[in-house]
Amino acid sequence: MANSRFEYVKDFEQPDVLLPNTWIVVRIDGRGFHKLSDHYAFKKPNDRRALDLMNEAAVGVMKDLPDLCIAYGVSDEYSFVFHPTCQLFERRNAKLVTTIVSTFTAYYIHLWSKYFPSSSLQPPYLPSFDGRAVIYPSSRILRDYMSWRQVDCHINNLYNTTFWTMVLQGGMSNTDAEQELKGTVSADKNEILFKRFGINYNNEAEIYKKGSVLYRQYELEEPRSVHPPAEEEASPLDSKQSRSQQDKLKKLRRKAQVVIDHVDIIKDGFWERRPWILSNKPGTLPVEA
Amino acid sequence: MANSRFEYVKDFEQPDVLLPNTWIVVRIDGRGFHKLSDHYAFKKPNDRRALDLMNEAAVGVMKDLPDLCIAYGVSDEYSFVFHPTCQLFERRNAKLVTTIVSTFTAYYIHLWSKYFPSSSLQPPYLPSFDGRAVIYPSSRILRDYMSWRQVDCHINNLYNTTFWTMVLQGGMSNTDAEQELKGTVSADKNEILFKRFGINYNNEAEIYKKGSVLYRQYELEEPRSVHPPAEEEASPLDSKQSRSQQDKLKKLRRKAQVVIDHVDIIKDGFWERRPWILSNKPGTLPVEA
Amino acid sequence: MANSRFEYVKDFEQPDVLLPNTWIVVRIDGRGFHKLSDHYAFKKPNDRRALDLMNEAAVGVMKDLPDLCIAYGVSDEYSFVFHPTCQLFERRNAKLVTTIVSTFTAYYIHLWSKYFPSSSLQPPYLPSFDGRAVIYPSSRILRDYMSWRQVDCHINNLYNTTFWTMVLQGGMSNTDAEQELKGTVSADKNEILFKRFGINYNNEAEIYKKGSVLYRQYELEEPRSVHPPAEEEASPLDSKQSRSQQDKLKKLRRKAQVVIDHVDIIKDGFWERRPWILSNKPGTLPVEA
Amino acid sequence: MANSRFEYVKDFEQPDVLLPNTWIVVRIDGRGFHKLSDHYAFKKPNDRRALDLMNEAAVGVMKDLPDLCIAYGVSDEYSFVFHPTCQLFERRNAKLVTTIVSTFTAYYIHLWSKYFPSSSLQPPYLPSFDGRAVIYPSSRILRDYMSWRQVDCHINNLYNTTFWTMVLQGGMSNTDAEQELKGTVSADKNEILFKRFGINYNNEAEIYKKGSVLYRQYELEEPRSVHPPAEEEASPLDSKQSRSQQDKLKKLRRKAQVVIDHVDIIKDGFWERRPWILSNKPGTLPVEA
Repeated sequence: MANSRFEYVKDFEQPDVLLPNTWIVVRIDGRGFHKLSDHYAFKKPNDRRALDLMNEAAVGVMKDLPDLCIAYGVSDEYSFVFHPTCQLFERRNAKLVTTIVSTFTAYYIHLWSKYFPSSSLQPPYLPSFDGRAVIYPSSRILRDYMSWRQVDCHINNLYNTTFWTMVLQGGMSNTDAEQELKGTVSADKNEILFKRFGINYNNEAEIYKKGSVLYRQYELEEPRSVHPPAEEEASPLDSKQSRSQQDKLKKLRRKAQVVIDHVDIIKDGFWERRPWILSNKPGTLPVEA
Repeated sequence: MANSRFEYVKDFEQPDVLLPNTWIVVRIDGRGFHKLSDHYAFKKPNDRRALDLMNEAAVGVMKDLPDLCIAYGVSDEYSFVFHPTCQLFERRNAKLVTTIVSTFTAYYIHLWSKYFPSSSLQPPYLPSFDGRAVIYPSSRILRDYMSWRQVDCHINNLYNTTFWTMVLQGGMSNTDAEQELKGTVSADKNEILFKRFGINYNNEAEIYKKGSVLYRQYELEEPRSVHPPAEEEASPLDSKQSRSQQDKLKKLRRKAQVVIDHVDIIKDGFWERRPWILSNKPGTLPVEA
Repeated sequence: MANSRFEYVKDFEQPDVLLPNTWIVVRIDGRGFHKLSDHYAFKKPNDRRALDLMNEAAVGVMKDLPDLCIAYGVSDEYSFVFHPTCQLFERRNAKLVTTIVSTFTAYYIHLWSKYFPSSSLQPPYLPSFDGRAVIYPSSRILRDYMSWRQVDCHINNLYNTTFWTMVLQGGMSNTDAEQELKGTVSADKNEILFKRFGINYNNEAEIYKKGSVLYRQYELEEPRSVHPPAEEEASPLDSKQSRSQQDKLKKLRRKAQVVIDHVDIIKDGFWERRPWILSNKPGTLPVEA
Repeated sequence: MANSRFEYVKDFEQPDVLLPNTWIVVRIDGRGFHKLSDHYAFKKPNDRRALDLMNEAAVGVMKDLPDLCIAYGVSDEYSFVFHPTCQLFERRNAKLVTTIVSTFTAYYIHLWSKYFPSSSLQPPYLPSFDGRAVIYPSSRILRDYMSWRQVDCHINNLYNTTFWTMVLQGGMSNTDAEQELKGTVSADKNEILFKRFGINYNNEAEIYKKGSVLYRQYELEEPRSVHPPAEEEASPLDSKQSRSQQDKLKKLRRKAQVVIDHVDIIKDGFWERRPWILSNKPGTLPVEA
């Protein structure tokens, strides 16, 4: 082949396979969304249309990639989770991350006009996202990762809600509000909201307080420990399933509806009633009414 | 901070900084474009609209990222090249790759209706791209990489042109055409085109035969060796330029027009007349008429 | 500092920290030991002096590095295991591997004359070892790794014992023995040994059949499941122990004697009676007589 | 094979091939040599026996590994350099580093009694070394790395010489000497040595001031630029040499004597007269008298 003289350059591509039997989290973040949200006049502190757009794009990703078992989104970021037994793209890092980033971007741009019908996209103000993969060796740590993001959601939303209420309803300057909030704890912010503005933070919409969690919907199960003995967990043999078994599971997962929930994922309850998320074994499809 | 209990999960993120003073090539590829091009009825063997869309999306990426010094596209793939002195995102692999993949996807989806006004995008048939970064330690090898892609373009285009002419004009079945072309060399395909269909392959459009090369336009220079003595090449000190110097260069690069060319990039001529591509030192802006 | 002009070269050193909360196995192998064992006339199929030398060198490594929780040796290879909570050298790959390889080599050369008093070392026939680190995400997989090595020991030793008995006692040529053994299973080899040479393989020395396992000795415990619920296993907080706690544990580990055992490490029994190996929590020191 | 059930654990070994066509430097460092040099009473500021031992061990490594083109040692550290075309161990990082660390350690321990006949090695005070590989994309940067180490040698030796002269000849306490030297520049230290102790630093032994450089000896050549045009440098095709060509070169390299020099390697002169070091093409063997 005439091309062979130059083909040695392929030797410079370095393998990037992620360690087997570990959870893979791909987290993506909006690039320059601060400037972007100004340009397209997103509402403060939360723009419901922007969040719904994020969520629908994420549902699109979940449907395109049935290997994903759960996703969690807040603000302009989204985390997508692959099970330790996942063999998609032979677990190649760049392939997994770029596929998710690109698919998400494609949905986001494609769906934009549905959520922002009156402000069309104008280059160079095109929304885009960067991403990275991180691996976690156990379910315990994966759950701590998810908790980390939800706690972050809470902390940021309480701050933003208070800040923007002080500015928009209280007429304070950005600088003054920022200054007053410096060093405050949660209780202080709750009090500012309640005492000055009559706002009970607990009554804020769940989507703002809890973020959005996406998963495939099966019949909820009776709570039982989600932590099987270690020897059952992440059994390496699962990743050696026959191709046909894997395809069968993939089909089952495709059948399940992807739901968008705004609930606590820090406590055990969420995971105990939805054991299929950590086990990756499809549950019982809900009986349709 | 209430979050600290879970923050240890950040320790699992592993650094992915690319080796300093090496060329970075980010190559992206359309995902499932075979199926996609059927779905949206791309013309065979080349769909000019699809190529123009790829090119305009790539120009968008070049404009958004002035650190890019050259890009080369063919079919549904594009290679974007950063100079060895590039410090963008501290040379973090995932950040560089995902930014390019996402920006490209955003432009591609956004510009789709301009090039395919009569066939609107329908999920799940949304175009998306995957990508990877590869580093090359010298200009010589970077040029061999570019040559590799252009030779590949030539080989594939000659094959596809012959194959589709045999099918579309010659009325052969796909299988028969494939069978006949098995084992043929370039000369054979040229002859089939000429003898049977009166087509001189040399007269085919340059964009199909050569692919598309994108770079910033300055005044062409008198050819001289593009290979400075090794001690000048990729001087490590360049990457230690002051921030203000870098910003100045970035501004100069932004001013230059990004052009789309369909020319030979294998021979020295292209590089000798455009020394700014390998040196990364902006040339002289053309005098406007 | 006069040196600063060149100090940029340090930026080329790339981080190599191993993923947190995973088991680290450093396996070392003798380099060219086939030739070496000929040169120094090691006995076939097993040279007890050579194995004892390997074992004493490994004990030296275990004593120098109290972070090691277990080691397993067979022939000219040794596997050293660090616990998921290990923070030694900030878990830097090269540092961990080279320290073990170098310390082992130092002991091996230093102790050589004790085990081979009549054949002194002659360059370039100096024994040396290469090594690599592999990480495993769960205790289950770590144990499978250990089982893999012990099964390998068994398979190789049965083969070698049969082969060398056929050659040394049976007077066969190497080629003939090799030829006859091709395709045989364990039962065949056991039969050859027994029928032709009256050797019951089961009566061979345990060190040859089982290899050598090294660990710190505490009071054996009543068997109980070694697999705690997953939420207890590899608790990430363990790795966040205070420096003083870690130092205290390190001291306790130093006090324990390192023993050399030749027992089954595939079944649960070994691990259940020595829970400190997987838990990394020092047990009760044996009461001295 | 009975072993197959556990063999999946091999999938956890991750590739670590170093980027092609780059210089590989393996630097090793003595572990805890401060304590060790006290224990074995090394002379201050330099112990000639200890340096000669380091050098003879390094010569052993150079002879064992003909792929090495140069090495540089100072104090208890040594840097070994492989050419960009090196294919040894398929350029696997761990294999290259551990082989050098282990071979060096083996020689060091083996040769100890030759240089320290009256103080025999006593565990746990066995000398050992750690190491790491770093890759450099061009000859220019490789030379800057070498310069960095030699400048470091100079700075440290000037400091140590001054410090120990103040303590040993001047009768100062360690603390006082340290205090007085804080913030001084080279000229200050030269003056202290000369004015107070009549020592002209320039007359110190070259091995202390310049460190030790090891390379294969061929006929010196007339100085000419060591920097060939970039297109000649590190030609990727060199690494594609036929196996037989490589073996021939390896043999030629084995024939050359490894010399220990104490000369300036920062200026061009050293490299220009020994072009074989950077080109990796064996020179002319000296005519023996």
